[in-house]
Amino acid sequence: MNSGGHDLGLPVDVPSTALFTDHYELTMLQGVLNSGAADRRSVFEVFTRRLPEGRRYGVVAGTGRVLDAVENFRFDSGVLDFLRERGVVDARTLEWLASYRFGGDIWGYPEGEVYFPGSPILRVEGSFAECVLLETVILSILNHDSAIAAAASRMASAAGGRPLIEMGARRTHELAAVAASRAAYVGGFTTTSDLAAGFRYGIPTVGTSAHSFTLVHDSERDAFRAQVDALGRGTTLLVDTYDVTEAVRMAVEIAGPELGAVRIDSGDLLLVAHRVRRELDELGATRTKIVVTSDLDEYAIASLAAAPVDAYGVGTQLVTGSGHPTASMVYKLVARARSADPEAPLEPVAKKSLGGKSSLGGRKWAARRADADGFAEAEVVGTGPVPAGLADRLLQVELVKGGDVIAREPLDTVRERHAAARGRLPLSATQLSRGDAVIPTEYL
Amino acid sequence: MNSGGHDLGLPVDVPSTALFTDHYELTMLQGVLNSGAADRRSVFEVFTRRLPEGRRYGVVAGTGRVLDAVENFRFDSGVLDFLRERGVVDARTLEWLASYRFGGDIWGYPEGEVYFPGSPILRVEGSFAECVLLETVILSILNHDSAIAAAASRMASAAGGRPLIEMGARRTHELAAVAASRAAYVGGFTTTSDLAAGFRYGIPTVGTSAHSFTLVHDSERDAFRAQVDALGRGTTLLVDTYDVTEAVRMAVEIAGPELGAVRIDSGDLLLVAHRVRRELDELGATRTKIVVTSDLDEYAIASLAAAPVDAYGVGTQLVTGSGHPTASMVYKLVARARSADPEAPLEPVAKKSLGGKSSLGGRKWAARRADADGFAEAEVVGTGPVPAGLADRLLQVELVKGGDVIAREPLDTVRERHAAARGRLPLSATQLSRGDAVIPTEYL
Repeated sequence: MNSGGHDLGLPVDVPSTALFTDHYELTMLQGVLNSGAADRRSVFEVFTRRLPEGRRYGVVAGTGRVLDAVENFRFDSGVLDFLRERGVVDARTLEWLASYRFGGDIWGYPEGEVYFPGSPILRVEGSFAECVLLETVILSILNHDSAIAAAASRMASAAGGRPLIEMGARRTHELAAVAASRAAYVGGFTTTSDLAAGFRYGIPTVGTSAHSFTLVHDSERDAFRAQVDALGRGTTLLVDTYDVTEAVRMAVEIAGPELGAVRIDSGDLLLVAHRVRRELDELGATRTKIVVTSDLDEYAIASLAAAPVDAYGVGTQLVTGSGHPTASMVYKLVARARSADPEAPLEPVAKKSLGGKSSLGGRKWAARRADADGFAEAEVVGTGPVPAGLADRLLQVELVKGGDVIAREPLDTVRERHAAARGRLPLSATQLSRGDAVIPTEYL
Repeated sequence: MNSGGHDLGLPVDVPSTALFTDHYELTMLQGVLNSGAADRRSVFEVFTRRLPEGRRYGVVAGTGRVLDAVENFRFDSGVLDFLRERGVVDARTLEWLASYRFGGDIWGYPEGEVYFPGSPILRVEGSFAECVLLETVILSILNHDSAIAAAASRMASAAGGRPLIEMGARRTHELAAVAASRAAYVGGFTTTSDLAAGFRYGIPTVGTSAHSFTLVHDSERDAFRAQVDALGRGTTLLVDTYDVTEAVRMAVEIAGPELGAVRIDSGDLLLVAHRVRRELDELGATRTKIVVTSDLDEYAIASLAAAPVDAYGVGTQLVTGSGHPTASMVYKLVARARSADPEAPLEPVAKKSLGGKSSLGGRKWAARRADADGFAEAEVVGTGPVPAGLADRLLQVELVKGGDVIAREPLDTVRERHAAARGRLPLSATQLSRGDAVIPTEYL
């Protein structure tokens, strides 16, 4: 289904992704155009120093959106006028920006792959000037989307195959919500309530009614009848506006045993689900499903594993990353040439830190070493030659070559990749209890 | 300065704000068109049952964006085709949507005002059909923007008049970042690093350089010289790439005592700021400022109150709401007529809850009672007549009248309103320690 999805290019609140940029990227550009360092061949890497506290793995998400953003990163006359009026940079820099188009290479972990501390998730190579400008938008996308996908992945594990409905649009920025639906789908969610996510990415959308639908009618009976008349017996009736037991009885009376599902949105879901299941069965509605939707997170989902629940709707905790709304990825210069000569060798560079913010210089490869059964054993990151045993376990793929995006893929492919990658982690990866990264990162 | 800002209407990732809508709003519409309840006069209210844990007040933000979203909420042929292809709703509902334009009234707390549990922050009145559709997008905007503004407001209190730079773009969705800059400005921030926020809302943007700028040059000295050459002596030099003491000495040597500022982005900021101030003073750079920017939140800002710090840059904790990335606002039907007759009386309605999700029926007014010194004493919310003593303390203002937006205002007005409203709260409002709402909500 995700072969479709309407791609409108990238119309946004501003005319170009080039404005999703911190002011200092442009003043740095002015500085290097002035100093001559602009054309030094450079390597930037995206990585995270640690996983969110207690998490055992991360999930790369947003790569597809990064590719769109890089492709659309242009300074048109409206943007240039703005920069000129505000005096952000000088005339020479504006002129340079007017013809900007990223012409370098980007390698990275394929979207949906898992990652660990130090994993070189994305590598951007080109002139310093062309690469430094992309920092902010790349981090915005990866930090947001990966945080949501990681939460989604834990919830999908906890749900153990039961469908998960993403319904958090109302709890986050309206466009973050669209990206969150996409990331949730990558992490293992099944559907979304967000029509924009259906429109933009082809994710299946679902939904039937809220309490207001019951309340606007003269009675719950009228509301149920109206909904079944309009949407058919296969619909999902919301049964907790007044008295659940009474509502379930009435729902089956009106829709018959063909009633698709009932939704419970409050109360002790474990208790209520059992009671509702019993009641539905007694009424002969043995195939009517139960959907639960109240303030769920991965722990609440797991606690309902033994309950007669057929689907979970998750809102707030999904779109806020279940306690970790952002991944802490950074974009660091790790190597650069000492001159603009294209043949000049790359030299590793790194900040010397005052407090934990150090990083490892040099352009890195990464491989995931597996044990005899094929389960991941270590994330191996290196700057030197790749050991023979790891050559076929390399993680980075080429995404952009000479400025051209060469690795677009359907969202379903990404989703399947994530499920497969998670499936090859040690079994303790999906424990919900707090822990360290499930495999160590080894530096060669 | 905020009279400016480029208003592009609302081009977004999808062609209309009408897609920022949960699927069930449309199926409910189909249901009420079928049952006849569509035209029942209805009142929906936005409120929150509680403040985020430990918070003493909330901040209304996003209202201006809500007005844009309502104005742009249209179903064009592309959207209708999508809904038809997906079978979201039937032909009659699609036809109704094709001519949709909100024609009702919206009242609400003016943007920047503070709020408390139960405050009727926004009230949407019209036919059930026209009002129910707006639920998702209104909540998305208010929940996101208010969460950020509340965090910003606490940080602004903690900073006690020192400038605050919003620099969280890289830590959140690229468009959420633009809204976050706007909300931060409302809450009391001074500037932003986000060029898109400057472009869209006219917020002043700032920034000079990152560690990569130092690292791409052959030496820190080369980098500092390049930056001062390009950006002038008034620039801010980042002094913690290698050795801070050495860097500060070199910075003043290169820029002279006219050096604008130095930025410290790691280490024990309290300690380092004192040391750097002493060094700057000894070097004669007594007017060179110190900007600090490492993982700050309101507590870290407060802890630096006695340190020689001239400005704070805040990223992650701002855009993630400092632990509370979403406000828990809901949009509830509180009253409706029993027929489509425009003269039919409104009757209060409310869900009976299983667990804490109950709400108070009826269309509400709200007033903030003040003590003799003019400080807020209670949030008074009622459904009956307004007591004489509160008639001039009413909080809600008319925002949309018969579908027309009548209350646009410059962002600076909103920002000043917030500062004034916060200033009229009891002094304990700005304590950072965890507490309850600083004034009680009384229901009449």
